[in-house]
Amino acid sequence: MLNFNYNIPTKVFFGEGKIEVLGKQIKKYGSRVLLAYGGGSIKKIGLYDKVVEILRENNIPYYELSGIDPNPRVESVAEGVRICRDNNIDFILAVGGGSTIDCCKVIAAAYYYDGNPWDLVIRKAKIEKVLPIGTILTLAATGSEMDAGAVISNMETNQKYGIGHSGMFPKFSILDPTYTYTVSKYQTASGVADIMSHTFEEYFSNEKGAYLQDRLAESILKTCMRYGRIAIDEPENYEARANLMWASSLAINGLLGYGKDSAWTVHPLEHELSAYYDITHGIGLAILTPHWMEHVLDENTIWKFVEYGVNVWNIDSSLDDMEIAKLSIEKTSEFFKSLDIPMTLREVGIGEDKLEIMARDVIDYVGGTVGNFKALDYEDVLSIYKKAL
Amino acid sequence: MLNFNYNIPTKVFFGEGKIEVLGKQIKKYGSRVLLAYGGGSIKKIGLYDKVVEILRENNIPYYELSGIDPNPRVESVAEGVRICRDNNIDFILAVGGGSTIDCCKVIAAAYYYDGNPWDLVIRKAKIEKVLPIGTILTLAATGSEMDAGAVISNMETNQKYGIGHSGMFPKFSILDPTYTYTVSKYQTASGVADIMSHTFEEYFSNEKGAYLQDRLAESILKTCMRYGRIAIDEPENYEARANLMWASSLAINGLLGYGKDSAWTVHPLEHELSAYYDITHGIGLAILTPHWMEHVLDENTIWKFVEYGVNVWNIDSSLDDMEIAKLSIEKTSEFFKSLDIPMTLREVGIGEDKLEIMARDVIDYVGGTVGNFKALDYEDVLSIYKKAL
Repeated sequence: MLNFNYNIPTKVFFGEGKIEVLGKQIKKYGSRVLLAYGGGSIKKIGLYDKVVEILRENNIPYYELSGIDPNPRVESVAEGVRICRDNNIDFILAVGGGSTIDCCKVIAAAYYYDGNPWDLVIRKAKIEKVLPIGTILTLAATGSEMDAGAVISNMETNQKYGIGHSGMFPKFSILDPTYTYTVSKYQTASGVADIMSHTFEEYFSNEKGAYLQDRLAESILKTCMRYGRIAIDEPENYEARANLMWASSLAINGLLGYGKDSAWTVHPLEHELSAYYDITHGIGLAILTPHWMEHVLDENTIWKFVEYGVNVWNIDSSLDDMEIAKLSIEKTSEFFKSLDIPMTLREVGIGEDKLEIMARDVIDYVGGTVGNFKALDYEDVLSIYKKAL
Repeated sequence: MLNFNYNIPTKVFFGEGKIEVLGKQIKKYGSRVLLAYGGGSIKKIGLYDKVVEILRENNIPYYELSGIDPNPRVESVAEGVRICRDNNIDFILAVGGGSTIDCCKVIAAAYYYDGNPWDLVIRKAKIEKVLPIGTILTLAATGSEMDAGAVISNMETNQKYGIGHSGMFPKFSILDPTYTYTVSKYQTASGVADIMSHTFEEYFSNEKGAYLQDRLAESILKTCMRYGRIAIDEPENYEARANLMWASSLAINGLLGYGKDSAWTVHPLEHELSAYYDITHGIGLAILTPHWMEHVLDENTIWKFVEYGVNVWNIDSSLDDMEIAKLSIEKTSEFFKSLDIPMTLREVGIGEDKLEIMARDVIDYVGGTVGNFKALDYEDVLSIYKKAL
């Protein structure tokens, strides 16, 4: 087990009706609020009205930033910063899924930076200070509600990159599973794939001594397997929505990665798909994952696939190792299919034409090879993209 | 899954050499330190010298409280409070195992209370404010390094009770597995039993919807099963010590209990054994656990034992449910025996004479029945004690 520093300061209020804490929590950190959200689904489910009612009851002035897109854009960040500065805002409330939360995190950081917010994303400038943020989650997927990272896109330059800072941990997050009842089947499936991919990125590592962390990762995977289809078939199944919501937070808040040195692979590959084609992140991850697994399976990595197959998919451990490994990948792919995820790039509108550019961008951004479970170069990445077509 | 509030603010610095952060961390919270420890094992392993060196290098004045006993006494608390007040101490550093940490937590709370510290433990007075504390852990067992609870004993009145307050979360804990290399075989086994018991207390619950939490609990149990014997046979096996140390923290920091409403059972029963006979806490837990399991196994609880047997002990799920349940209990008992734990009360010097008084004390303290997986009354408790003789 490698050395690590554990620090997860976000307070989570989990369960139906937990929005009751909102007024009191905001007042701990600020007095003038940026209320940020996406396309308006929070209005359909009555959550917007509830939030506004609480802000008014507590005499908290608020200013709105709406229309934050999936794969949130740097333009939304700039707009948010402008509203915050114009109105002396000292607290940001993100109501929505990972895109809204990520956008708010970078607004909170860019508020204290005089240049173009994109400088922070591409690390041209350093984050020095961050406004406090809180979140009300409406989608179980990215885990942004309990971590210190954000992913922002620039569609002009076809770039989508992650950024992190300890000040970007939300001060609090309200996780009410009933807010995810209206999430579509497609977005539910995508969220499950995202949670599983976060887990895979940490789990598939060469570190053999983090036994406990690997069992925790398997717990998250089993939870996704158990409740993924149920949440799609019975959108108002509280138990399924609750377990997936909590899994989304625990998959990426650090718990699975502490003591390991995993360098993520499938996420950078997917970020290119989203940056060029604006596809749904989780769907891109699901499409790429089995091909990535097949590509990295070799005599050095097979032990991990055997562990995965036996512990997660209950594959008979007396089978030949390679058989277990291949079966485990097959079962992964079948599972995503069982959630009605389109499992080829072509199905989501991606053809051959930009594969080379995207593969080049992946490698250029990391400046060498990507991932460390098995490091991938340009040819590897291109090969995975091609197989996923 | 029941509603819950997640809040684990303790920062953990985990791994060999992490003591390097000590000076900087202390300075964040205070300037004059109470350095508290137990019987002197920290001197044998050189840790005392290292801590003192760091305090001196950082020009941090410190005052010592030594000799804190296992099953820490209220007298040590009073002594600690006196030293803190006499020397204007504003930060408490606990170096040791759970007993030292627990004692320091209550010193930190009693510092702000004018009456007898025991009033806080028996809830005659309320904790209002708590001095900041930090810990350097030397024993993987109680999890006190990452939670907000403490257990204090009063040998005059034969009472041992738990107490908690959010202010008692350590600000930081330094977890260096090498500090546990010299822990004796007996104490190592006791620690493993303690970790497993904390897990059992949360796991064996009637809440069926906290699927994820139950898988996390199983991860902790598997970690104990995998590394318990290794740590005894190879005391300097870093991987074993590291996994057990991290398991000790995660077992009781809240992660396993969120979303469930477990009322602990075996701990209150054991606290009486320690209060009357001053035995090693984890040993008492190991002795009682299988008898408690047998006692609560019935048609309502059998499902949980089946889950436990199949998921944790890999018992063939096609067997009859009652067979799986009984086998799971047998395997639990065998496992504790395999750690060379004496598995009867008589072996640790406890005879029949005080069983009734202790059973009465358990019930009197909780004011009715104890536990809620299956609530136990006086006769139940007495029966478990008798079977454990």
